[in-house]
Amino acid sequence: MTKRTRQDRPTRQAQIFETAARIFCEKGFDKASMGDISAAMGLTKAGIYHHIRSKEELLYQIMSYGMDLFETKVLDRVTSIDDPLERIRATLKAHVLLVTRDRPKEITVILHESNALKGRYRDRINTRKKRYVKFLEKTFRELVKSGATRHIDPSVAAFAMLGTINWIYQWYRPGGRLDETALAETLADQFLGGVLKPAGEAR
Amino acid sequence: MTKRTRQDRPTRQAQIFETAARIFCEKGFDKASMGDISAAMGLTKAGIYHHIRSKEELLYQIMSYGMDLFETKVLDRVTSIDDPLERIRATLKAHVLLVTRDRPKEITVILHESNALKGRYRDRINTRKKRYVKFLEKTFRELVKSGATRHIDPSVAAFAMLGTINWIYQWYRPGGRLDETALAETLADQFLGGVLKPAGEAR
Repeated sequence: MTKRTRQDRPTRQAQIFETAARIFCEKGFDKASMGDISAAMGLTKAGIYHHIRSKEELLYQIMSYGMDLFETKVLDRVTSIDDPLERIRATLKAHVLLVTRDRPKEITVILHESNALKGRYRDRINTRKKRYVKFLEKTFRELVKSGATRHIDPSVAAFAMLGTINWIYQWYRPGGRLDETALAETLADQFLGGVLKPAGEAR
Repeated sequence: MTKRTRQDRPTRQAQIFETAARIFCEKGFDKASMGDISAAMGLTKAGIYHHIRSKEELLYQIMSYGMDLFETKVLDRVTSIDDPLERIRATLKAHVLLVTRDRPKEITVILHESNALKGRYRDRINTRKKRYVKFLEKTFRELVKSGATRHIDPSVAAFAMLGTINWIYQWYRPGGRLDETALAETLADQFLGGVLKPAGEAR
């Protein structure tokens, strides 16, 4: 099954998702209303409900598209890399660049509204998030097995990496002292320096 | 001026803060109403408003108490440590233990509702948060000067540390494989391993 991309969606629906993602970022999901979204689009509420069943479905569709973006731009590009060290470095950099250079509103919504989604919608997004965590843990386990690491815990390493990256949107502003590539390099060097055995130490 | 602790507050007001912090954690600030809080306490809404002016003031008081806890249990205990490496290690461990062992609801509210607070209230909490960031940046700068570090960026190191710690409540469940102290040690070793020059390398 190929992933749906925004281009495949009927234009009007795509515009609704785009507008809703912006408004959810600005006001927060709980405070944003379908009225806000219809007003921003110059549509009636009935016009919106012609394309989307509920505010919850809208949130799910936005997060789902955010996960599509993440998988297309990060996960799908790195899973086939054989060497675990190369794989984790490529993952770190691609993920940092996604949240700093591309900065999709949909990823901000995923991070900010993790508790707003309920039931089956929540389960589906969580399954995709967990797939990434499992991928990171597996990669760190392979690195440990290869003898390249200090005494690390693969799960702690995975969540430390996620925490570092998922926090970036809270403080990083583009156009500052460090550009996106420099930040990705610095973070990758620092993070991997904490995971890897110092060079020169016997394997 | 001594910091206000919960013990100094009139009992009823302290109970309102306690209940409101729990409800804000469960429902989120936007969805929680003063009616939810008064119902949970068996008071009338007028009874609540006798003690507190608004939901916003309640949020501010809860965050303010969370910052009191953080400063008392982490920052105030480490600022006087002379050696920057000892200082940063003590900070990391104390902060990790605060969010894993003590797990104050008020800290969860600070992390989850960072956008809910507005105006002067927001400024006051942000000033206290920034004080911590400045302290971390200063400590990393001292470490760099001492010659003990790799080529790191003190601000990136500070925010990477904050991201790692502030993400913990999203995944760490007490009573699991790693206890709180083991997690604090593992995270400190891994994080500082990424910051410090490998042992044996010339200073």
